[in-house]
Amino acid sequence: MSDLVTFGETMLRLSPPNGERLEDVREFEVLAGGAESNVAVAAQRLGTPSTWLSKVPESPLGKRVVSELRGYGIETDIAWSHRGRQGTYYIERAGKPRGTKVIYDRDDTAIATAEAREFDVDRIQNARVFFTTGITPALSSTLRDTTASMLKAARQGGTTTAFDFNYRQKLWSTEEANETLTKFFPGIDVLVIAARDARAVLGFEGDPRQLAHKLGSQYDFETVVVTRGSEGAIGWHDSVVHEQEAYETDTVSKIGTGDAFTGAFIARRLAGDDVPTALEYAAATAALKRTIPGDVALVSEEEVEAVVSTGAEEVSR
Amino acid sequence: MSDLVTFGETMLRLSPPNGERLEDVREFEVLAGGAESNVAVAAQRLGTPSTWLSKVPESPLGKRVVSELRGYGIETDIAWSHRGRQGTYYIERAGKPRGTKVIYDRDDTAIATAEAREFDVDRIQNARVFFTTGITPALSSTLRDTTASMLKAARQGGTTTAFDFNYRQKLWSTEEANETLTKFFPGIDVLVIAARDARAVLGFEGDPRQLAHKLGSQYDFETVVVTRGSEGAIGWHDSVVHEQEAYETDTVSKIGTGDAFTGAFIARRLAGDDVPTALEYAAATAALKRTIPGDVALVSEEEVEAVVSTGAEEVSR
Amino acid sequence: MSDLVTFGETMLRLSPPNGERLEDVREFEVLAGGAESNVAVAAQRLGTPSTWLSKVPESPLGKRVVSELRGYGIETDIAWSHRGRQGTYYIERAGKPRGTKVIYDRDDTAIATAEAREFDVDRIQNARVFFTTGITPALSSTLRDTTASMLKAARQGGTTTAFDFNYRQKLWSTEEANETLTKFFPGIDVLVIAARDARAVLGFEGDPRQLAHKLGSQYDFETVVVTRGSEGAIGWHDSVVHEQEAYETDTVSKIGTGDAFTGAFIARRLAGDDVPTALEYAAATAALKRTIPGDVALVSEEEVEAVVSTGAEEVSR
Amino acid sequence: MSDLVTFGETMLRLSPPNGERLEDVREFEVLAGGAESNVAVAAQRLGTPSTWLSKVPESPLGKRVVSELRGYGIETDIAWSHRGRQGTYYIERAGKPRGTKVIYDRDDTAIATAEAREFDVDRIQNARVFFTTGITPALSSTLRDTTASMLKAARQGGTTTAFDFNYRQKLWSTEEANETLTKFFPGIDVLVIAARDARAVLGFEGDPRQLAHKLGSQYDFETVVVTRGSEGAIGWHDSVVHEQEAYETDTVSKIGTGDAFTGAFIARRLAGDDVPTALEYAAATAALKRTIPGDVALVSEEEVEAVVSTGAEEVSR
Amino acid sequence: MSDLVTFGETMLRLSPPNGERLEDVREFEVLAGGAESNVAVAAQRLGTPSTWLSKVPESPLGKRVVSELRGYGIETDIAWSHRGRQGTYYIERAGKPRGTKVIYDRDDTAIATAEAREFDVDRIQNARVFFTTGITPALSSTLRDTTASMLKAARQGGTTTAFDFNYRQKLWSTEEANETLTKFFPGIDVLVIAARDARAVLGFEGDPRQLAHKLGSQYDFETVVVTRGSEGAIGWHDSVVHEQEAYETDTVSKIGTGDAFTGAFIARRLAGDDVPTALEYAAATAALKRTIPGDVALVSEEEVEAVVSTGAEEVSR
Amino acid sequence: MSDLVTFGETMLRLSPPNGERLEDVREFEVLAGGAESNVAVAAQRLGTPSTWLSKVPESPLGKRVVSELRGYGIETDIAWSHRGRQGTYYIERAGKPRGTKVIYDRDDTAIATAEAREFDVDRIQNARVFFTTGITPALSSTLRDTTASMLKAARQGGTTTAFDFNYRQKLWSTEEANETLTKFFPGIDVLVIAARDARAVLGFEGDPRQLAHKLGSQYDFETVVVTRGSEGAIGWHDSVVHEQEAYETDTVSKIGTGDAFTGAFIARRLAGDDVPTALEYAAATAALKRTIPGDVALVSEEEVEAVVSTGAEEVSR
Repeated sequence: MSDLVTFGETMLRLSPPNGERLEDVREFEVLAGGAESNVAVAAQRLGTPSTWLSKVPESPLGKRVVSELRGYGIETDIAWSHRGRQGTYYIERAGKPRGTKVIYDRDDTAIATAEAREFDVDRIQNARVFFTTGITPALSSTLRDTTASMLKAARQGGTTTAFDFNYRQKLWSTEEANETLTKFFPGIDVLVIAARDARAVLGFEGDPRQLAHKLGSQYDFETVVVTRGSEGAIGWHDSVVHEQEAYETDTVSKIGTGDAFTGAFIARRLAGDDVPTALEYAAATAALKRTIPGDVALVSEEEVEAVVSTGAEEVSR
Repeated sequence: MSDLVTFGETMLRLSPPNGERLEDVREFEVLAGGAESNVAVAAQRLGTPSTWLSKVPESPLGKRVVSELRGYGIETDIAWSHRGRQGTYYIERAGKPRGTKVIYDRDDTAIATAEAREFDVDRIQNARVFFTTGITPALSSTLRDTTASMLKAARQGGTTTAFDFNYRQKLWSTEEANETLTKFFPGIDVLVIAARDARAVLGFEGDPRQLAHKLGSQYDFETVVVTRGSEGAIGWHDSVVHEQEAYETDTVSKIGTGDAFTGAFIARRLAGDDVPTALEYAAATAALKRTIPGDVALVSEEEVEAVVSTGAEEVSR
Repeated sequence: MSDLVTFGETMLRLSPPNGERLEDVREFEVLAGGAESNVAVAAQRLGTPSTWLSKVPESPLGKRVVSELRGYGIETDIAWSHRGRQGTYYIERAGKPRGTKVIYDRDDTAIATAEAREFDVDRIQNARVFFTTGITPALSSTLRDTTASMLKAARQGGTTTAFDFNYRQKLWSTEEANETLTKFFPGIDVLVIAARDARAVLGFEGDPRQLAHKLGSQYDFETVVVTRGSEGAIGWHDSVVHEQEAYETDTVSKIGTGDAFTGAFIARRLAGDDVPTALEYAAATAALKRTIPGDVALVSEEEVEAVVSTGAEEVSR
Repeated sequence: MSDLVTFGETMLRLSPPNGERLEDVREFEVLAGGAESNVAVAAQRLGTPSTWLSKVPESPLGKRVVSELRGYGIETDIAWSHRGRQGTYYIERAGKPRGTKVIYDRDDTAIATAEAREFDVDRIQNARVFFTTGITPALSSTLRDTTASMLKAARQGGTTTAFDFNYRQKLWSTEEANETLTKFFPGIDVLVIAARDARAVLGFEGDPRQLAHKLGSQYDFETVVVTRGSEGAIGWHDSVVHEQEAYETDTVSKIGTGDAFTGAFIARRLAGDDVPTALEYAAATAALKRTIPGDVALVSEEEVEAVVSTGAEEVSR
Repeated sequence: MSDLVTFGETMLRLSPPNGERLEDVREFEVLAGGAESNVAVAAQRLGTPSTWLSKVPESPLGKRVVSELRGYGIETDIAWSHRGRQGTYYIERAGKPRGTKVIYDRDDTAIATAEAREFDVDRIQNARVFFTTGITPALSSTLRDTTASMLKAARQGGTTTAFDFNYRQKLWSTEEANETLTKFFPGIDVLVIAARDARAVLGFEGDPRQLAHKLGSQYDFETVVVTRGSEGAIGWHDSVVHEQEAYETDTVSKIGTGDAFTGAFIARRLAGDDVPTALEYAAATAALKRTIPGDVALVSEEEVEAVVSTGAEEVSR
Repeated sequence: MSDLVTFGETMLRLSPPNGERLEDVREFEVLAGGAESNVAVAAQRLGTPSTWLSKVPESPLGKRVVSELRGYGIETDIAWSHRGRQGTYYIERAGKPRGTKVIYDRDDTAIATAEAREFDVDRIQNARVFFTTGITPALSSTLRDTTASMLKAARQGGTTTAFDFNYRQKLWSTEEANETLTKFFPGIDVLVIAARDARAVLGFEGDPRQLAHKLGSQYDFETVVVTRGSEGAIGWHDSVVHEQEAYETDTVSKIGTGDAFTGAFIARRLAGDDVPTALEYAAATAALKRTIPGDVALVSEEEVEAVVSTGAEEVSR
């Protein structure tokens, strides 16, 4: 049985290999990427047995996604579907002033029809943490119900619930997100949220410390983590605020950094670390993720330890 | 003004570059492919100015498709859309006994909503031939109406109408195809149809010569071409049947062979060739297509001439 | 619990991607390959839950191998080692008259030190079939003992033992192989052996039917399968000989064909098929394998069924 | 009819894909590049219908170049030639202290023999701007005459003439360039020139503002743009000098930056912008170009607008 | 000192890696190829120390060519030039009915200006065989003189002269070739010529045995080899004719087959083999070459021996 | 005869081409790399004829390594072996905070058994400089003796001995290295050592100037060079200390920088430069190396001159 169970969509991730524009592309690099599986992989890498639940089309593309995730070491529990598409997304990487662009092609996917009864509730109730993100309920009204059911089942089973707010403007409006996601808040123990989303979607004001405090007190979360990209993160727990700086990186791929952070934070909390220590490992894992192509934090515990303690040498031989 | 105008969907065509299985793919080769644009390119290559009409999403993926087709030398007249997906398809190439497999991901595309009024009817009425295939009305009920309108407009403008039956079992049943497509027959001058489809969808019987004759007499077509893959083709015109063998090839990619055949046939007919001569050039173009990766017949008139007259040398230097 | 458990070495498989010579290579395609994991994957693909046991260095290269195998869908049970190399092999593919060449670099590997006590004997005893090959005891004297122990444990637990003779001239002499492997024979229920090895290593004579019969009677196997490459295979069971032809293929990669055959044979026998039916599915799986790059039979049950019943269409769309 | 017509050579552009040295290269990335077609593409992207005139060999290599340019969306009007080579150039990209190196292989090209009468003068006279660069007359004495004829024809037809000085030390000496190009100046309305060339070739002195002013007054240009690479540009118009800074970029490929700048400047001037606004869009287009591999500014108007107004987000999803 | 010295042009060889058409190419595979260096490499591989003489531009492209040849194991003696281009050629591979096409871009090369005095005559006179081909004098009138001088020097030094007729229709007419090359015949000991060239250029008639005999007697050669592609070769020596069949191959690249044949023939003759034996090794080397990408026969003596004695196994492991 | 002779191991160097993790790699870039051959190539590039001595397996992998080195222009003198592996190493490139990692797979190599008598002592005694590094004696006890013999032979022949300390923690402990390498010191004329190694292995203290001075005086070296990575180097000669800064670079590959430095230093000293000038050229060569993928400094003398005098332009065309 896994200690962490996550639920959500993982897409086929297509990107021009050398920074070409999509409108001129001749070749795609193919990987899998999705917030909830990214979190599961990061947690597994830091020692937490993890399972990803999803609904995936019974097609070569669906198998492709699941195969990659199994290769990363996590368990998967899949509701294979004969209806619905495999979601894909396209990434056009670029630096300043163009910026990386993501194009979603994730309508009418198999997962959009996923209901709670298609999964084994025992998996969730026997886990120590259940995790999903604000992307999942943004995908369909069915998934809003499913997310609610799963959070409820987790709570009933005594499983800690963790949730990354993850607002995606390409999926829904700030109003819809606010209305839907705040309804889940009473069932959530650990909330991870970008400072940007706390302001733009939830309407909070103040510096990140204040955001963490206001969120924590208003909704009675056990833990709140407010992330600020390259400026680090704030952890709020038992009414105490902890600040964590980001490590300096030579960034290869930014996408998935937040998921690496969250997966590591959960893993270290499950391993018994206090919040400041877990934040430190989370920041180290996020920093390592940025040196790795793709969405996923293919790190080892030793590497994370090395970053936390000293930073690695330039060439080790 | 183009002599040939075609209308239909062109998809982004994704295939593992070295014969890998889709469920294990790490890289996709990216090209564009669609029956109606394939025909336009083949005709253009044989000297017929050609234009492809379509409705395409105003997105990098839509631009990608149009850019490739323009590069092949044809004109494009695009209804750019802010709604609807860019269709894609996946090809898994394999020899015996596995066989090449195609997976369509073409639901909810921009073109499914294309109406005749979104295009300039003059383009069609000023052309000498208007061409589409049985794939187009299979994509949506809107496109059934649009196909009907365009065929009617062509007829009214004195433009010859050419139609490739192109039954696709992954898009609709034989019953639906039969019912829909036979309704178009009175408005069609030149019909291209696989012997297999004439039998399985239209219920005709007999050898290919008989199929051609029955089709031609029953529906009052001006010309009927019955294709038989590597066994050649039959042309029926003015109640006379002409037989054309296929040329021997070292096949690299079979997909698009029929479109190369049809495009060349139309081009040579427009250039004044009689049916047997046009069939010969069509067969030569189809043979050359099979030596070319991708969907499209990137041939030159000289190459086609060389195949018709002698076959090319092994190494020319 | 898995129905099939296999034990053996899987190597990192490096090959020039486009048929370049090794002495001129600039790029390697990287995959994993090993007889026992190949068999496990093939069996899993045909519906038998399978686990591969091995000893692998705790290094990025070792993880690379295990990750790929997990991605193919089997379970793995690994004795991670801090000593010993990850075996690699180099493949130089070529047609006539050069022929494909394999260079092993598999001395001093982690697995060469693997002892039976490093693995959970319950896994073997709770499985329905335990499988290994003549490669494993060729790798070290420790592995000879380990192979013997595992076969004995399987027999004690009531697990059927299956063994592919797999003589490798680059690992040992025919004399050593004969002496070592025939000692295992009394503990083996199902023997798979190439006709070539039966003659050159074991000194049997006669046509393949005779070889099967002589082997079966002399050593009291339950089942003997004599393989003959593109000429098919012979199954001997309950003193009855069954002949199976090979399917015609467009071969992309020959390596792993025998393992695909064996894995499918085991899976179908476990599913209750009689020997002739299992041979037919085995031949179909082997034929499909030859259309797939790499060592591993990434097939589906439906594809195997399709080959058995009719052979697949050339292009399915 | 196009608003902008450009004339010049476009070469096949061969470069090692991953920064390898030319003397060790095993693979070339193949693209097309030439100042005048680069300018046409950039202008087209900012909304100005553009045509590129050239003389190109009737060969697969010549077709390769034209095909790529058509794919970028511009019109082409080609004098196809049965004599003369297709020019090529080799790029060896490197950072400090090595620096990117360009090797030209552009002797005896088809375009070197291009005469004005091979092109339709109406295209030039019906355009709103005719553009060429100092590279064209450097290629042959025939092209000096052709450039002169075309500039004269444009002037006679009331078409604005724009010219990028573009001194290339690998093509001719500063003396030859000075003597030839200053003769064209009376026929030129808009001059673009690098500060470096104004000093080294024309012998002007002073800061860029002074260079612009001196050039403008001495030769009676309507507009002068003095470019300074990453330090921005100076525009002089109606005796007023306007300064434009360069935007900060993560540079992928520097080559073609100046052409992107010039194409955008022309497009925005044609769209009615005043000089300072056109310079701002030109700088934004140039900045975006630097994030794009290859010679050509594959940008959209929206992206340029976004840079002008705010700079883009890091990841948009 | 090398036993074999060859003189001629080696070009940069650019080809689309996966059979794409040149007009659609995005990537080139880069290799070096030239008849005389191909012959030197093949001879070296069969044990004859060999040196290739040439004149090459002192540029990264020139160094690229020489570096590759040195890597293949031969010695090089280069007249580095500051004038003249590096010749290139483009290969578009295709099967029937298109056929492989070669486009030369070899005008104005450095080697076209090579004079005999630029090379050390001792190298030629101390060798046992001097070799060049009919391509060299086709490149420039200077090279006609140089070829004549070198052949004369070889003869004076007692070095055997070997010459491959190698008529190239893209370089000169049959009349020019006939006139030029027959003048060299009195200075040549060993002539290699395709049956096709003996007929089309020299006007001989008859079957290949008759061609060999007529050539040998008319021009007083010591040895004549008439090649017939996949139909084998005829050797004429001391008025005796020897026939050699070609080995069956799975062909990857045909180009360079003849050079492999000739290089091996020379090497084996130098090693003391009689003509029939040398022809057998030559045919085996040519067969192996066809399994190797690129122009060059990267074979080993063992491999050639294996083909001569038995043909190799399908998979050796 | 070469002026510089080096002796040591060169490995096959396998690295994921685009920064992928080794545990997820699908493709390896293949190159050769080894300190002593790197030094030979760098020296050759700066005009010193150089030969690399080694013992290499007579296998395609061994030939692969030697072929690449010959291509770079140096001579090779190889003891071909039928026993022992070809060493390989794996590089996982990464920036901060992960850092580049090297995994050696160099046990039981052919070179580990190399004895001095397998090489021609005249090569060493006729050279002007003999060079090896502290890696060689770390590989086996046989190689400790061989290193000692060669250094002794060089000294006897009047050949200057140069030695790069090159401590590798993955090969031996600081104690073993200290004990072994200091024994060689009396036979060494020119020592190159990283400041880090002087401290950690030899136990010296002080700033780099002090380290150089202490080393030089204590062991009676003729010249000592203390390297400090991106902080430059210190040269000590005739009791005088010279300081050299590193040039600023856009680094593509750090590995081999020190070898480029050393090779250039030796070449310039052999060309007659004084120590400060040689250090300047060494620093320039090292800076250029960092812009080049792979281990080897594929530079030209002109490029080094250009860096020493001015630094190169950004784009030269």
